[in-house]
Amino acid sequence: MKQINEIYLKKRIREWLHEDMPYGDITSEYAIEDDNIGRVSVIAKEDGIICGLFLAKYIFEACNSDIASDFMVEDGAYIKRGQELGTIMGPMKGILQGERLFLNLLQRLSGIATASSKYKEAIKGFHTRIVDTRKTTPGLRDLEKYAVKVGGCHNHRFSLSDGVMLKDNHIRASGSIKSALVSIKEQIPHTMKVEVETENLEGVREAIGAGADIIMLDNMSRKEMVDAVSLIREKSAHITIEASGNMTLERVRDVAKTGVDVISVGAITHSVTALDISMKYL
Amino acid sequence: MKQINEIYLKKRIREWLHEDMPYGDITSEYAIEDDNIGRVSVIAKEDGIICGLFLAKYIFEACNSDIASDFMVEDGAYIKRGQELGTIMGPMKGILQGERLFLNLLQRLSGIATASSKYKEAIKGFHTRIVDTRKTTPGLRDLEKYAVKVGGCHNHRFSLSDGVMLKDNHIRASGSIKSALVSIKEQIPHTMKVEVETENLEGVREAIGAGADIIMLDNMSRKEMVDAVSLIREKSAHITIEASGNMTLERVRDVAKTGVDVISVGAITHSVTALDISMKYL
Amino acid sequence: MKQINEIYLKKRIREWLHEDMPYGDITSEYAIEDDNIGRVSVIAKEDGIICGLFLAKYIFEACNSDIASDFMVEDGAYIKRGQELGTIMGPMKGILQGERLFLNLLQRLSGIATASSKYKEAIKGFHTRIVDTRKTTPGLRDLEKYAVKVGGCHNHRFSLSDGVMLKDNHIRASGSIKSALVSIKEQIPHTMKVEVETENLEGVREAIGAGADIIMLDNMSRKEMVDAVSLIREKSAHITIEASGNMTLERVRDVAKTGVDVISVGAITHSVTALDISMKYL
Amino acid sequence: MKQINEIYLKKRIREWLHEDMPYGDITSEYAIEDDNIGRVSVIAKEDGIICGLFLAKYIFEACNSDIASDFMVEDGAYIKRGQELGTIMGPMKGILQGERLFLNLLQRLSGIATASSKYKEAIKGFHTRIVDTRKTTPGLRDLEKYAVKVGGCHNHRFSLSDGVMLKDNHIRASGSIKSALVSIKEQIPHTMKVEVETENLEGVREAIGAGADIIMLDNMSRKEMVDAVSLIREKSAHITIEASGNMTLERVRDVAKTGVDVISVGAITHSVTALDISMKYL
Amino acid sequence: MKQINEIYLKKRIREWLHEDMPYGDITSEYAIEDDNIGRVSVIAKEDGIICGLFLAKYIFEACNSDIASDFMVEDGAYIKRGQELGTIMGPMKGILQGERLFLNLLQRLSGIATASSKYKEAIKGFHTRIVDTRKTTPGLRDLEKYAVKVGGCHNHRFSLSDGVMLKDNHIRASGSIKSALVSIKEQIPHTMKVEVETENLEGVREAIGAGADIIMLDNMSRKEMVDAVSLIREKSAHITIEASGNMTLERVRDVAKTGVDVISVGAITHSVTALDISMKYL
Amino acid sequence: MKQINEIYLKKRIREWLHEDMPYGDITSEYAIEDDNIGRVSVIAKEDGIICGLFLAKYIFEACNSDIASDFMVEDGAYIKRGQELGTIMGPMKGILQGERLFLNLLQRLSGIATASSKYKEAIKGFHTRIVDTRKTTPGLRDLEKYAVKVGGCHNHRFSLSDGVMLKDNHIRASGSIKSALVSIKEQIPHTMKVEVETENLEGVREAIGAGADIIMLDNMSRKEMVDAVSLIREKSAHITIEASGNMTLERVRDVAKTGVDVISVGAITHSVTALDISMKYL
Repeated sequence: MKQINEIYLKKRIREWLHEDMPYGDITSEYAIEDDNIGRVSVIAKEDGIICGLFLAKYIFEACNSDIASDFMVEDGAYIKRGQELGTIMGPMKGILQGERLFLNLLQRLSGIATASSKYKEAIKGFHTRIVDTRKTTPGLRDLEKYAVKVGGCHNHRFSLSDGVMLKDNHIRASGSIKSALVSIKEQIPHTMKVEVETENLEGVREAIGAGADIIMLDNMSRKEMVDAVSLIREKSAHITIEASGNMTLERVRDVAKTGVDVISVGAITHSVTALDISMKYL
Repeated sequence: MKQINEIYLKKRIREWLHEDMPYGDITSEYAIEDDNIGRVSVIAKEDGIICGLFLAKYIFEACNSDIASDFMVEDGAYIKRGQELGTIMGPMKGILQGERLFLNLLQRLSGIATASSKYKEAIKGFHTRIVDTRKTTPGLRDLEKYAVKVGGCHNHRFSLSDGVMLKDNHIRASGSIKSALVSIKEQIPHTMKVEVETENLEGVREAIGAGADIIMLDNMSRKEMVDAVSLIREKSAHITIEASGNMTLERVRDVAKTGVDVISVGAITHSVTALDISMKYL
Repeated sequence: MKQINEIYLKKRIREWLHEDMPYGDITSEYAIEDDNIGRVSVIAKEDGIICGLFLAKYIFEACNSDIASDFMVEDGAYIKRGQELGTIMGPMKGILQGERLFLNLLQRLSGIATASSKYKEAIKGFHTRIVDTRKTTPGLRDLEKYAVKVGGCHNHRFSLSDGVMLKDNHIRASGSIKSALVSIKEQIPHTMKVEVETENLEGVREAIGAGADIIMLDNMSRKEMVDAVSLIREKSAHITIEASGNMTLERVRDVAKTGVDVISVGAITHSVTALDISMKYL
Repeated sequence: MKQINEIYLKKRIREWLHEDMPYGDITSEYAIEDDNIGRVSVIAKEDGIICGLFLAKYIFEACNSDIASDFMVEDGAYIKRGQELGTIMGPMKGILQGERLFLNLLQRLSGIATASSKYKEAIKGFHTRIVDTRKTTPGLRDLEKYAVKVGGCHNHRFSLSDGVMLKDNHIRASGSIKSALVSIKEQIPHTMKVEVETENLEGVREAIGAGADIIMLDNMSRKEMVDAVSLIREKSAHITIEASGNMTLERVRDVAKTGVDVISVGAITHSVTALDISMKYL
Repeated sequence: MKQINEIYLKKRIREWLHEDMPYGDITSEYAIEDDNIGRVSVIAKEDGIICGLFLAKYIFEACNSDIASDFMVEDGAYIKRGQELGTIMGPMKGILQGERLFLNLLQRLSGIATASSKYKEAIKGFHTRIVDTRKTTPGLRDLEKYAVKVGGCHNHRFSLSDGVMLKDNHIRASGSIKSALVSIKEQIPHTMKVEVETENLEGVREAIGAGADIIMLDNMSRKEMVDAVSLIREKSAHITIEASGNMTLERVRDVAKTGVDVISVGAITHSVTALDISMKYL
Repeated sequence: MKQINEIYLKKRIREWLHEDMPYGDITSEYAIEDDNIGRVSVIAKEDGIICGLFLAKYIFEACNSDIASDFMVEDGAYIKRGQELGTIMGPMKGILQGERLFLNLLQRLSGIATASSKYKEAIKGFHTRIVDTRKTTPGLRDLEKYAVKVGGCHNHRFSLSDGVMLKDNHIRASGSIKSALVSIKEQIPHTMKVEVETENLEGVREAIGAGADIIMLDNMSRKEMVDAVSLIREKSAHITIEASGNMTLERVRDVAKTGVDVISVGAITHSVTALDISMKYL
């Protein structure tokens, strides 16, 4: 499920380690011998969905190629408070240098996966997909979108380059949805779909007429969404319908009932509580 | 208050923009003319402390050097729902390309500043400092630590290179606090302090004896903290006392009462709710 | 028409200039004074479609910010042998340092645009799109895909990340088209289409059944293509049909007649004759 | 024959793979299992000189260190249509990720080597060297110059830093060949030669008088070249004579007969037909 | 003793090798076969303290992963003219490519270590530390500071980020030492000390009053230093006293006698004689 | 005289500034206001040749684009103790951030230029060139080679890529000078010369026979050098003769008398005393 360029991931890990020790780890350097070998246990301190274990390999290898990691669970597992997830073994200096970066990522990604799984659960029984947005942490987008999937939800476009989303401001600048879509469809690869953001039924009508592949219902009331879905389905079974705007955990089930195909939620990436996980020296 | 290398910040901004558009912004490219000039308003959608406005200059300049920004408030201001914070003016394509990155950072940093300000408020009247930890987002440490200060709190060390923190595992690997501190103090620059993490009064005693400059009381009960403070103050007025471990907003006032100098809180950087802010096209 | 990240383009230009002068331009350094200002004319030495003029700004600015360029034609213009395209003015040292890089790119992109325009001409009157492939020069993909469009053709997907293309080997590894598509459609963003490569009618039938959005007819005879198009159109008006494999300039008109929507051509990027263009000192 | 910095080559390969999959290879990710191991055959689809096989090691290793390659021929071999060149074995995901980059480079370099071998053949029996120019693809210069040698020709200078070439414009800016050469020879390392471009016999005479080590006869007629060679040889046996300007395959044998030492040809790098090579899954 | 980020060190080594061979090592490429394996002896040609042997591993590994190194001495050893320090074994091409970089660093670092050891010796018997400054070679700071320690001296702060040093100009800009220190102490992490530079007793008095942790006596006479030390010790046993400014080898013993804790010396990094070391092919 | 890629220089300056302040300049940040504007005088504290003033522009511009510099002397001027060289004006924070890097480079390059000028002076009246070697500081080679020329001496090759130097070990690995030179001359560009290192007259004879362009006399006695020069001049007026090995300032005049063309000196770059220069706030 990793839509991740692993070569670029390794480069970022090297930079993140530089951020955490531009001039080395001075405590370990003077308190611990180079040949001190140890084992560290990774332990859950909260219940949730674990995500990011595969990073251990990259992070600790960057610190010292003699460090090995071994996990008993896989990304996506539901873990319980107190559960041992696995061990990191090898030269202690390297383990200590990588520890904070590993936990910072693991806790954040697990927090996202855990939040996502709750949204997934909330719409159980519906065909609707919960998807993420571009409201991700700069530098971590691929990792955070991976965590959303690990938690059972789906991804929206990855960047401004791989999906068209015509928003209000584009429409005004272009004159109309129609003229904008004509220009866009003529220019983009035939492999791409076009999404149009709408704020009311009139917009929806225009988007259908202009040939949108995906229509986003932005900040509409439940009633408006129901009407929009009817309107769209009258015309076409092929258009994907997406609901967006303040899609709280409490509200998504009700929204799913309107028949929309996709609900996009910014909060599962931008406002996450880290899952508490620690490393304990054995 | 910016302990930030701005040259390195600009480099990261270029990379973050590459993350968001490896092959350009295809929607704007085909819907908007190159010479379309516009004004966009930055508007608060929630109350809180604003932080990160200075990033507009760097981000939008990277997108198009003709974009200007003008804000009516400064980082640290308490803003109200609906308040206009300022405007971004210039070529619309560039504004749209930088919008998401700017908001993603602005919302996160404002979320951190807002959370920090609540902690600051909670210990009002005490000399105690609330400080952050190394539990920051990889790649954003300097920005997040800046947001903590904008919110009225303080920073702990920035990295493994600029502060010594002797933890349990270092101690075990080294034999004793004493032997570890002897080695460390002999080796580090005379400009640095040494902090020792302790878990009980015995550890505190050892740390005092070994000449720690800062003693951290980790996961101690209120009672233990009171005793530890007495013990330390008996010996020295110079030692800084830091409390750490599960320091919730509810709990910090009580901890401050124990007389500790510093309380470190991971949650103000690792588990933050983004402050809702948007950009509206005028 | 530029699906190009201009920040990343500038970075590559800096690296390409480093490739051409790791230790400076020793001839100019000792033969020309720093304050020698000049004007250079860019002149076509062959007929064709010009492409890449916008690069002058980036390349010469990197060499010396005092260099200006001014062109009388725009990318996409049909230029004639001997025609003056514009001028580069400023410090001669910088102009000489950037000259070779500018011409190397300009000649190649113009070669691609010129070749593309011939393919475009060849299928005049048909709704069919000629598109490029991923057979581009490493490091130049965005520029070469831009040149294809300047020449009147269209783009296929930009990378392995923004489009799904299920080829023979994926199918064999996965068991069947059906099982592969089920897995892929469940996992990818709802903004993406799925293309399946087929080699015969049986493959086409399977691809239709599995729900492909785009079906590629790979290396089929004219007769097979005609049959495939009928078969597909019987089932759906929505499936995009792409022909691929040895699509020479001589053959594309005939292929277009079969009713396919898209013809992909590797040669317009991988085997191009540079358009001869030179810079003459005035 | 590799005047290539292999460390820098590896860096470029990582960037080129990023260009082709900023967010991973989504087709393989969902159609193929991580533990799917396979073998792929590299097969010639045209006759020509193969060049670039050594890149397989670097490219596939960057994708997955468990991939191995094994070739039955070496760079420089004349290969025939249908011939199997070797195999790539290992995890299929990694093989599929590196395939396009490997083939894009292999086909281009083999195209250059094949073209070069024809030029080499054309002047058989003469002492003359066919050499390349700086008209190479940005980012690929070292690889393309290597391909020229694999094809039996030679290299001209690698960059503006490792050879002096005094062209018309330098001369005008400096006042005269003489004054320019005095300044240059006084300043450059004693390890370097100086080349002067001339357009007529008068220029040749000046170049000899000024002490040029290499004299380029630019765009001269056959007659002029013959005269220039006589003139130069009267004065010195040490001066290297280079012919340049529109040196087509048809013309080079005639030019070689004039007695020049070197003929420089831009087309062998800037206008090449890729040699068709494919990878077939076994 | 290495306050060095080894990941960043490896990156710099790759860049330094690129500086020394942007287009490969042309002599070895054509004179030596790829499979030529050899052994090279590293030999001291002067007496001194060796420093930098650990770099062999990183440098030669970057050139060719099959090269191994084996040393009989360790960094810090006093070596004698003619002594064999160890051997480098493996493919000769790679050894020759890395040789110059290795020796350039080894000779410089050993020069620094040797100079430092003389300073250390000069103040034998005193508690005073000789420390370095920020007058290091750009790009080599961590390595040079390591060499200072290998030679028996100590480090001052590593950068502008990890230590506060209030100099004359800061003071003037801020109004007074007192106001500057109030602002600084309020803002910096509690893990940091504050140093104030003084030029006379009045400055010393102010610095004490403002709560400086370290007071630097800059360019004072012996008499002034003696007075300053008395003045400071009267008030506090905790303040570290540093002497700075023209601290020659001849003078440091006399300065140490004044009772200062630290003497900072720029010359041990900025004006060093390289220790002569060579590599001899066996 | 700058054989420097200025784009790459700017990149290194950004990295060197990052080395000196990974997390900003904390002293200035809290002691000095953003809008504090000042003037700083650059003053010589020793007599010597100044070199590196052009770096001020690049360094301070990187710190803050509002900083300007203005010098009364140019690189190469002989400056006297106490002389004001120029001023740096603008925001004080930026000036203080760049000060140390600027002085570290300026002092080192001026030290090299000053040392070089003494060697130049020592051989006054002879046609002999004093040249540098590859014994330069990693990362600073272009700057240090520039300083050598500013001091009146010349450069040897810049890297392993732009000059051939056949040393003892290459010869042994290749069998003989002759066979090595045959292979090398066949492969390298015709723009390059070939240098052979010799240790005695026999080697010199072989080098002449094999067609060396430059012959280095390595570690020979005065008598041997005299004989070698005779031997070479008997055969050819074109061969450049270089003396190398322990070429001290005391000895070079005597060596120049032997008639060698070039004397290479490692010490002018590897063992330099920095010229004392300071910045004084006005």
